[in-house]
Amino acid sequence: MNLIDGNQIASQVLDELKIRIDSLAGGKPCVVFIRIGDDPASVSYVKKKQKTAESIGIDAELKVFKESITEEELLQEIDSLNLNPMVHGILVQAPLPSHINDVRVFNHVSPAKDVDGFNAVNLGKLCQEQPNAFRSCTPAGILELIQRSNIETAGKRVVVLGRSLIVGKPTGLLLLNRAIPGNATVTFCHSRTHDLPAITREADILIAAIGKPQFVTAEMIKTGCAVIDVGINRIHDSSKKSGFRLVGDVDFDQVAPKTSHITPVPGGVGPMTVAMLMTNTLQAFEQLQKN
Amino acid sequence: MNLIDGNQIASQVLDELKIRIDSLAGGKPCVVFIRIGDDPASVSYVKKKQKTAESIGIDAELKVFKESITEEELLQEIDSLNLNPMVHGILVQAPLPSHINDVRVFNHVSPAKDVDGFNAVNLGKLCQEQPNAFRSCTPAGILELIQRSNIETAGKRVVVLGRSLIVGKPTGLLLLNRAIPGNATVTFCHSRTHDLPAITREADILIAAIGKPQFVTAEMIKTGCAVIDVGINRIHDSSKKSGFRLVGDVDFDQVAPKTSHITPVPGGVGPMTVAMLMTNTLQAFEQLQKN
Repeated sequence: MNLIDGNQIASQVLDELKIRIDSLAGGKPCVVFIRIGDDPASVSYVKKKQKTAESIGIDAELKVFKESITEEELLQEIDSLNLNPMVHGILVQAPLPSHINDVRVFNHVSPAKDVDGFNAVNLGKLCQEQPNAFRSCTPAGILELIQRSNIETAGKRVVVLGRSLIVGKPTGLLLLNRAIPGNATVTFCHSRTHDLPAITREADILIAAIGKPQFVTAEMIKTGCAVIDVGINRIHDSSKKSGFRLVGDVDFDQVAPKTSHITPVPGGVGPMTVAMLMTNTLQAFEQLQKN
Repeated sequence: MNLIDGNQIASQVLDELKIRIDSLAGGKPCVVFIRIGDDPASVSYVKKKQKTAESIGIDAELKVFKESITEEELLQEIDSLNLNPMVHGILVQAPLPSHINDVRVFNHVSPAKDVDGFNAVNLGKLCQEQPNAFRSCTPAGILELIQRSNIETAGKRVVVLGRSLIVGKPTGLLLLNRAIPGNATVTFCHSRTHDLPAITREADILIAAIGKPQFVTAEMIKTGCAVIDVGINRIHDSSKKSGFRLVGDVDFDQVAPKTSHITPVPGGVGPMTVAMLMTNTLQAFEQLQKN
């Protein structure tokens, strides 16, 4: 079993980006984060993204709005960032308050500045296998982990557990594309799937993105499968001062010995998501400079 | 075995559309077809679409350009149709000459008039499960055949043979969506897939869109599978005056007895593609009238 060290791979990616950014002529990339309200997880995610950006020479600006902001007001803020030539990337931190339609917001971000990759144009270009599309950060991070761990995907059976817009669908589509990594035979499973273990046992590579703590057990995978665990779930743990600990969608202790590769939680996919956001920001900067 | 009669179902769809179109206040839907060159198949497809449109009260205009048209000139023609308020739908008949980038052309059609559903915005909205997206015509036709034949999809295993932008990917995505039909467990197979028969034998519903004549044999499906054959291939047949006949991607005579449902070629998916183009044109008209 090879443990895939997401922190180490993310740090390689960031080092490579820093070298490219240091050598840029014509200004620095700038990303703007929009946070609505003070949800502790959102505060912490955005802080992490901001700190990482600054550490590699990307300007990161934070705009915080009250929970009471209307959708119309938010769209106007995005309009002004879309038009601002000093801004290259725009990220609206999810989840959004329930009175705001998140897809409408994602689709309002200029496709050229959509470093989160949630805009319909970028999702569509991903289906079209267009190289200039922004790939959403978690799927892009998963592909980077797979590639840098030398896991073969061509002709392999990939099973994606979960069909979310943020992770499941784009990850599966990327692994289906005619690319490296890619060319996999991809199956999408979800809550409506019958006899799930029979399907997951066919996987050479299993992507678990279902949001259920320790859902994937040893009986559900075949020996030698590579497992990418996208879940981040809090479970009760009285031995911790906080009273909880983080676990993935995979029962790590039980599953790991059967795998060829596995990502831990935390320290697997999580750090990659942040690193790929930086990759996308540099890409946005370079593409906008060209135009 | 139930033979799915695409001609009959398409004619039902068209009858229903005609009733809706006859009752429209505020003008008639208008679709413009762009054909480049005189490829006999393109000439015949466009003629069929035009005739069908006119038969149900949709205005259909044909613009023919020489093979020598440049990409820039074609994009300018599309610009002018995008801006023309009398035009509700625009279809650029594929295949395009090799000096023209087809994806660039598809992405240049206004998403609001993209009745072919090939524009990145509509593909992305299909991933986002947005109800106002135009679904590409062949995938939409396949879903209509499945629904009107009362084939259950929720929780079923769907295997899509082929990962094209036009058929394979959007069909699989639609069947994965939280909708009726939909909620299927979807596997995408293609030329790089290993041990294909083992995978196709798992299918409750098999979508064959691989472009290889009579590729799917009886050994490749399980008894009771529903088979949708998207292929249209010419094979040599000396008994025909033309010297050829049309066959699908499925070896019909051998496979049909094992299936629960099967589409013939011709007379299966083909007529549905044309019917769904009309559905999309009416949808475009109604959405544009609202705005």
